[in-house]
Amino acid sequence: MSTETARVEAFSDGVFAIAITLLILEIKIPAAGSVDLSLQLLRQWPSYVSFVISFAFIGIMWINHHRLFTHIRKSDDALLILNLLLLLGVTSVPFPTAVLAAHLRQAGERTAVLLYNGTYLFIAICFNLLWRYAVSKRRRLLASDVDQEAVNRITRQYAFGPLLYLFCFGLAYASAGASLLLNCALAFFFALPPHLTQRKRLSRPSTT
Amino acid sequence: MSTETARVEAFSDGVFAIAITLLILEIKIPAAGSVDLSLQLLRQWPSYVSFVISFAFIGIMWINHHRLFTHIRKSDDALLILNLLLLLGVTSVPFPTAVLAAHLRQAGERTAVLLYNGTYLFIAICFNLLWRYAVSKRRRLLASDVDQEAVNRITRQYAFGPLLYLFCFGLAYASAGASLLLNCALAFFFALPPHLTQRKRLSRPSTT
Amino acid sequence: MSTETARVEAFSDGVFAIAITLLILEIKIPAAGSVDLSLQLLRQWPSYVSFVISFAFIGIMWINHHRLFTHIRKSDDALLILNLLLLLGVTSVPFPTAVLAAHLRQAGERTAVLLYNGTYLFIAICFNLLWRYAVSKRRRLLASDVDQEAVNRITRQYAFGPLLYLFCFGLAYASAGASLLLNCALAFFFALPPHLTQRKRLSRPSTT
Amino acid sequence: MSTETARVEAFSDGVFAIAITLLILEIKIPAAGSVDLSLQLLRQWPSYVSFVISFAFIGIMWINHHRLFTHIRKSDDALLILNLLLLLGVTSVPFPTAVLAAHLRQAGERTAVLLYNGTYLFIAICFNLLWRYAVSKRRRLLASDVDQEAVNRITRQYAFGPLLYLFCFGLAYASAGASLLLNCALAFFFALPPHLTQRKRLSRPSTT
Repeated sequence: MSTETARVEAFSDGVFAIAITLLILEIKIPAAGSVDLSLQLLRQWPSYVSFVISFAFIGIMWINHHRLFTHIRKSDDALLILNLLLLLGVTSVPFPTAVLAAHLRQAGERTAVLLYNGTYLFIAICFNLLWRYAVSKRRRLLASDVDQEAVNRITRQYAFGPLLYLFCFGLAYASAGASLLLNCALAFFFALPPHLTQRKRLSRPSTT
Repeated sequence: MSTETARVEAFSDGVFAIAITLLILEIKIPAAGSVDLSLQLLRQWPSYVSFVISFAFIGIMWINHHRLFTHIRKSDDALLILNLLLLLGVTSVPFPTAVLAAHLRQAGERTAVLLYNGTYLFIAICFNLLWRYAVSKRRRLLASDVDQEAVNRITRQYAFGPLLYLFCFGLAYASAGASLLLNCALAFFFALPPHLTQRKRLSRPSTT
Repeated sequence: MSTETARVEAFSDGVFAIAITLLILEIKIPAAGSVDLSLQLLRQWPSYVSFVISFAFIGIMWINHHRLFTHIRKSDDALLILNLLLLLGVTSVPFPTAVLAAHLRQAGERTAVLLYNGTYLFIAICFNLLWRYAVSKRRRLLASDVDQEAVNRITRQYAFGPLLYLFCFGLAYASAGASLLLNCALAFFFALPPHLTQRKRLSRPSTT
Repeated sequence: MSTETARVEAFSDGVFAIAITLLILEIKIPAAGSVDLSLQLLRQWPSYVSFVISFAFIGIMWINHHRLFTHIRKSDDALLILNLLLLLGVTSVPFPTAVLAAHLRQAGERTAVLLYNGTYLFIAICFNLLWRYAVSKRRRLLASDVDQEAVNRITRQYAFGPLLYLFCFGLAYASAGASLLLNCALAFFFALPPHLTQRKRLSRPSTT
């Protein structure tokens, strides 16, 4: 974490942390009454499913943001604005999540899945814009000692993002369930690949 | 970020991050029922418009706050209190935003726009008070190696703020829509100008 | 900010920032309808009054917390627990604030003021416990180069806190309004005094 | 706090701070009306009890997280994911807390206590996974100068956690009240023991 990107990272961490924590507020508290509490709690399963999926997504997005900023060391106003655009997508997540929870297995399921996957399509595009801007113009915002191979690996992985999410978005017209499942699979794709390569780098003892 | 202003910046970052993330909670979740979900979602367009505008505003205010504190290196109790006054304006934003979302294209539109633009007028005044205090008395709270030209440029830009927002506020009596549009234009004015000049400065490699 | 207290301060800053930002959520959004919006907004004045008072209080508490931790450099488990006790009081503030907003100028006003001032009495006691623990046993948690006079001044000022807030609490039985006004006066008492003395110290250029 | 774990800790601090502060939102504001306010406030005692218990739990979990990361100095993707799993448990706490508050001394009490203690069982397992991963493979993520005895003490203490919480979970079938009381006792168990040993270490003057 360089001094120059410290506040961008702190602000982004705050937004990620709040967005991920607000998700729980969308789960309704069953009122005390005639219906058995266990039954009321079980009936709310779509809320739990969408809570866990959204939590995993925001968490994985945070890991990705963290990963990008281990390479980005300098900041300028355009980077701040692209980062804000990405955070706009991140803070929106509780809304499509709540819509999905309320309409899963209901008449509006397709619309809810389209809104949900559309949000992730938007975020995937923002991640690409942010990263491509940072590495552009002879990688002016990257650390001088940056690992060129690691940078290329991220660029390659991210390039697929918008296309895959666009396919995922379109798939909802054929099957809402399949679209949602593919969305989850994509999250794992973005959580895992550089994992294997980055672990090697990160496990080296820090010299600080 | 100096040690002395570190906690002020951390606290302010937290407040900005929370205020910007809470905005999404003001958007209502359409209930599952007889009405088509797409239609219900589309009807809520004023909520999305005011969400995006308020998000952009808080984001731009954060960028401005960040910009001021790259120059401010020392802190005292009066600065803390002026900063709190500014944050009072920032944390208020979700309220006028929600009022605007509920009353845009309704009978109370003018009142809602007045409340909304009034909040930004208040924030513009606070930004001026904070900055003028920090640069006053032979710039006692600024870094010793501060770029005098950059400081003057901010002072000149900010001086117009309250006047322009006052005009914008008054314009709501003539046309609520025009007033809202001018407000958006002003946001871009405060996002962009020093952008061009600061980018040069910020793109220099950091020596940390 | 020492490495040892950095995470305590970061966590506390987070809690203060969230508590101060959540206050706005307690203000109701008037629905679009037959009643004039301006009138609806004006009728909610107790909400604005209690919002501004609570915002000022949490802000002043944050300044005080910040002030204490410029002296406290070491941490132990008991300090963490006393700090949590203080934060319990701070996070509670939105509740008595909302109760006060709903019952000011209503039948339950006295009860609401008692709850409100009782919360501040609790917080004043916690501040004393935290500070007295930190300075006790030959000031084992303070910086080695601490200004003994500044420490004594804080100790003397804080000693009055619980007594004054207890009086303020009791005053609510005679007059709810007078009790609330005294509470506000006390907030200024805790915001201002060391201000004059600390400004001198803080305006010295930092050597970082 | 090493540079490598700084952002993990900052993000986690944010999540803990938000989760602990959101708890207050679950307490209902009594409306102004015919019923005496004091009576309305007193009737809500289960809300206060579950608020204070949950606050204490999240606070103690934060202290434990803080304690682990004074030993953990390196980070990798698996640690980030295990940490997210732990935070999933932490952010969930407001939900079982609100369910408990609504159903304590009601028909659904047992179910509410099972949900509540089940959440803590999950968190206890996550703490073990995180810690065991960090200390595994010749303690590859720990500081090189780590105190082996302190590490062993934490490992021994944590090993009991899941078993004790499982017993606590099962006890709810016999008595909901006893199960809740044991849960509180366990919180103290995890707050106190290393306290005595760690205080010695932490009270040494920091060399920063």
